[in-house]
Parts: sequence; C-alpha cells; structure tokens
Amino acid sequence: MEHRRVKDQESDDVSQKDIESFDRRSLSSNTATSSLSTAGGPKGKGSWKLKSVVTLALTLLTSSQAILIVWSKRAGKYEYSITTANFSVEALKCLLSLVALYGTWNSQGVTEDNRLTTSFDEVRVYPIPAMLYLVKNLLQYYIFAYVDAPAYQILKNLNIISTGVLYRIILKKRLSEIQWAAFILLCAGCTTAQLSPSSDHVLQTPIQGWAMAIVMALLSGFAGVYTEVIIKKRPSRNINAQNFWLYIFGMLFNLVAICVQDFDAVMNKGFFHGYSFITVLMILNHALSGIAVSMVMKYADNIVKVYSTSVAMLLTAGISVFLFGFHLSLAFLLGSTVVSISVYLHSVGKLQQQK
Amino acid sequence: MEHRRVKDQESDDVSQKDIESFDRRSLSSNTATSSLSTAGGPKGKGSWKLKSVVTLALTLLTSSQAILIVWSKRAGKYEYSITTANFSVEALKCLLSLVALYGTWNSQGVTEDNRLTTSFDEVRVYPIPAMLYLVKNLLQYYIFAYVDAPAYQILKNLNIISTGVLYRIILKKRLSEIQWAAFILLCAGCTTAQLSPSSDHVLQTPIQGWAMAIVMALLSGFAGVYTEVIIKKRPSRNINAQNFWLYIFGMLFNLVAICVQDFDAVMNKGFFHGYSFITVLMILNHALSGIAVSMVMKYADNIVKVYSTSVAMLLTAGISVFLFGFHLSLAFLLGSTVVSISVYLHSVGKLQQQK
Repeated sequence: MEHRRVKDQESDDVSQKDIESFDRRSLSSNTATSSLSTAGGPKGKGSWKLKSVVTLALTLLTSSQAILIVWSKRAGKYEYSITTANFSVEALKCLLSLVALYGTWNSQGVTEDNRLTTSFDEVRVYPIPAMLYLVKNLLQYYIFAYVDAPAYQILKNLNIISTGVLYRIILKKRLSEIQWAAFILLCAGCTTAQLSPSSDHVLQTPIQGWAMAIVMALLSGFAGVYTEVIIKKRPSRNINAQNFWLYIFGMLFNLVAICVQDFDAVMNKGFFHGYSFITVLMILNHALSGIAVSMVMKYADNIVKVYSTSVAMLLTAGISVFLFGFHLSLAFLLGSTVVSISVYLHSVGKLQQQK
Repeated sequence: MEHRRVKDQESDDVSQKDIESFDRRSLSSNTATSSLSTAGGPKGKGSWKLKSVVTLALTLLTSSQAILIVWSKRAGKYEYSITTANFSVEALKCLLSLVALYGTWNSQGVTEDNRLTTSFDEVRVYPIPAMLYLVKNLLQYYIFAYVDAPAYQILKNLNIISTGVLYRIILKKRLSEIQWAAFILLCAGCTTAQLSPSSDHVLQTPIQGWAMAIVMALLSGFAGVYTEVIIKKRPSRNINAQNFWLYIFGMLFNLVAICVQDFDAVMNKGFFHGYSFITVLMILNHALSGIAVSMVMKYADNIVKVYSTSVAMLLTAGISVFLFGFHLSLAFLLGSTVVSISVYLHSVGKLQQQK
C-alpha cells in the first residue's frame, strides 16, 4: 500500500494546492509556441497531433510531480514556505508566457490575436475560476472535521463525476452512453487503485461530510469547465496572451496568501528561505504541468484532462515501485485494469459517436 | 468484510463441490417443461423470454444458495456427510427429470426427441465434463500447498476469463470488442468486490500456484463450454433426456466418492445421518440451481451463465447485509459498480454486433 503515500503527501504539502492552482491559469512554453501559433486553433491542421502531444506532456508531468514530492520528502522535511513556492510557480509561468509571446511577436508581428493588451470584456471572467478554487480551498479546512485524510483522498474522486456532469451541462457537449460508462469506470477504477485497509472509514462519513465533498467536487469541476469556456471562447486568440491574464489573477491570489499566512516568515528568513535544488525542480515541474493543463484546455477538453491526470496517478504508482521499492497492491492492479479499459472504451465510444 | 464469509464458507463446505457439480449435469423441473417442449430449441418462438426466465432463475437460485449456507452454519455445524448430500442432489435432479419427461410423454407421446433410450454416439461424450471436474477437484487439494484460502477465492475469478476464451475458441462464437472489455471488467469487478485486507497474499503466489490456478480455470472453463457443446449438439433433443444421461454419470461419480470418503460413516450412522430441515432446503435449492444451469446452457450460453452467477454473488452479499447485518465494504461497492457497468456494456456490445 506504500504507493499511496505519493497521493497522501500531496494533501499535506505543496502539491495539493499547486496542482489545483494549475487548473486555472498557466502559460505556454517557448518551444511549444511556434507549433501552436501555426495550428490556429482546435480545428486547425495538425490539431490531432497537437492534442496528443499536450495530453502526453500533461500525463508525464503530473506523474513526475508526485515522484518529485516523494523524493524531496525522503531528502528531508520541507523548510520553505508553501505560499512563496506557489507564487514562484505563477511567476515562472508568467515569464515563460512572456518569452513565448515575444517569440510569436518576432515571427508574426503583433496582431489582434496575440497582443498583450486586453479588453474588460475579455478579462472580467478570468478571476472566476480562481475564486471558485479559493472557496473550495476554504471548505477543505472544514471538511476535515467530518472526514479523515484517507477518506478525503477517496472522496476527491467525485471530481471525476462532477467534471463529466458539468462538462455536459455547461459546454453542452455530448458524451456517448459508452463514454459515460467509461467515465463511471474511471472514477471506480481510480478509487479502487487507492483502496487501503482504512478506506472503509469513508462509508462512515456523516451527511455533512458528504454534502461538503459534493459541493467541493462541484466547485472544482465548475472551475475546470469554466476555464475551458474562457479559453475556448476566443479560439483564434493566442493561448499565451489568454494565460497571461488568467495568471495575473493567480499571482494576486498567491500574494494575498503570502501576506496572510507567511508574512512574518518571509520578512524574517527571506522569500527563498529553505529552497533546495529539488524545490527548484518541483517549481519547474509544476509550472510546466500548469502550461500543459492550459494547452489541454485549449486544444482538447476537461475530459481529456481528467483521463490524463488519472492515468498519471497510476503511472506514478507504477514508477514508484521501481524507484522506491513500494509494493503494488492487488487493489491497485485491479483499479489500473479498470482505468485502462475505461480509456479504451472512451476512445471506442468517441469513434461510434462520430459514425 | 463480513459478506465475504458467504463465499469463504462455500470453499470449506458442501456448496463448493456442489456448485461445480451443477455445472456439468442437471435436469429440468416439471413446471418448466411444458413451455420448454413447445419452444423447440434456442431459435424457437419465445426463446428470448425463455432465456430471460432461466437466467433470472439461475441468478436467484445461486444467490439463495449462499444465503442458505450461512443460515445453516449459524444454526450449527454440519453433521451430515457432504458426499451423500451431493448424491441426494443428483438423485433429486434425476427424479425431477423423469417426472418432467413423463409429463412430456403424456402430452406429446414418446418421440425420437424425448425418448429415454439413447445411442452410444450420443452418450459417449457425457462423462467428459464430469471427468474434467474430477481432475480439477483433485488439483484443488494440491493447490493449497501454494496458496491460502482467500487467495484461492481470488484466483477462482480466472474462471471468468478462461470461460470467455474457451467459449470463443471451442464454440467459435464471436464476442465484440466491447463485450471482451466487459468480460475483463466482470473479472476485475468480482475480484474487487471480494477484496479483503489479506487479499494481497495472492501476489506472493509462487509460479507453481499460478500454473495450477490457470490449469484449474481452463479445466473448469472447458468443462462448462463442453457441456454447452453436448447439450446444443442436438437442438431438438429434449433437455430432460439429455440431462438424464449427463446426470447418470454424476450419480456414478458421487457413488464412488461416497465409497472412498464416507463408507464407514454411512454404514455406521446411516445415509441420511445429520440431515436437518435446512439440509433438505439446501439440497432442493442445489437441485433447482443445477436445473437452471442446464437450461441456461440449452437456451442461452456460458457467457450468460458467468454473468448470472457473478451478479448472484453480489446479490448474495447485498441480501446478507439485511439478513445477517454484514457490513458492506467500499471494495464491494466499487466492485458491484464495475460489474453493473460490465453487464450494461455486454448488452450494448451485443446490440452493436447485431447491427
């Protein structure tokens, strides 16, 4: 059951908040931009290839995230402040976004689609996902009055279902019946893979705990789907310019968090106090994952994102077996089987829908 | 995890052997015969309705089997000999078979299809499934040198896969890709539903244990599929006459088992020593289940049988929660979800195959 540590540690540490912060705002890397700017949107030439590349990137980056967390834990306890790390991630994404935009301006000139300046009409919806996550993160402190940490990990899989339902309602995109079956299997498979002897506690969750878990799943799902709405609303708009504005709000929110939570620590010990080589690696990884999430939202959708991060969770556990000598549980193998078939059925269901 | 007792007790007690003995031979009940004899085979009028009725009967009878076992265990330890109970089941099925045949003869007269006399060509293959089960049951004593009882329960789910593979190879019937996916899900779901804290032992099974488990699954699957071959080879032949002969070999094998295992006990204490009201109920239930398996083989197939008994396993656990106050585990709920979706996908896959 050792592989679950990867997941458990996320909830205590930097990654839990970070991964969620990636969902709402990020920007493109320099290398990706040249191919993206020629693709010209989700319906453009090479969009299938692009979709595959960003999905693969998200999967690999999410997998390596948890590995890095375990590695850094083994190297010793975190000494840095989580809020400054979050801010650094946002700052790095901002930098990469500007570098990418600069490259585009040099090759194509400044156009209506890739200019940095924006209208109130474009930018006014950008803080909404960030605010939804804020409410969700606040609720997170209260839910632990009703559920323990392993049960919370189990309940987080409700995000999969809420994302699917809200994707259907808000984006009005149809999933075939087989794809819905696949989505329920994805949720069941991920939960199975995380089963531990203490998982049954979740069944003793009081009604308040369930209510809060469902509200949190809906908030998280809505934030994800709403980000897709924002990004896809202007298909020809450069993704880096879109992310820049999403990300500005990310910086603002993290700045407030630093002031509220770690003002004294930052003042006394310095902003980068306790940073190590691995901390820098994690910030880099989180920034790139954030960029990948954003790319997936632009060129694929929330469903692909959910599959991608779920498969990443399983890959992480598989890799951990080799890297850290964790034992694979039967529950994990069964869950992985169910998730694999879910991925297969999702693609089969899509083909049948297109017929 | 209490619901798993139902399954565990099967392996120690009468039902384990009995359930498997049902797979190979059984006969029709009196009431079912009148409708069966007019249906005239699997392609006849009303075959869909007939198929549903026998499938439902098998599911309900298999569910109540395990419930009866738990009930009888609660009432006290078994005092009767298992071999005489097995023989009684075969004898009861024989009686019901003859009564049903008598009814048919009275209404339709003795014909080529419903006469009791048989040819060597028809009867020579009938002992083959029984012999396969004998080899499998012998292997069962040796496999416990390599695996413990809970691990054996887990490994028994390999039967699902072996039945599917042999059904495809021997009966040359195609399953659609979605149906294969559903079949793997059925196996994963059943295993998940049976997960207990000690299930991970199965991963420490040595290579000999795996080899024997696979051979046993193949023997069991082959016996099931071969029974279907025998019964379906003569579609117009009366099922009761077919079962009579299959069942004659069942009686012979059980007579040998009595002589080898319980000869002294039967001689000293009598044949029906230790029988209670519940023992009689169990024998009746086992006889009717055997008849239902046989009907499913004639009018449906092994795939339907596997789904039927798997759903029965889940129903049993569900019913046990109400009857005996067992606790449902999260693993059971997840496994049930996966099995339910598997059943749905199997029917969707069939519809698409027919298009």
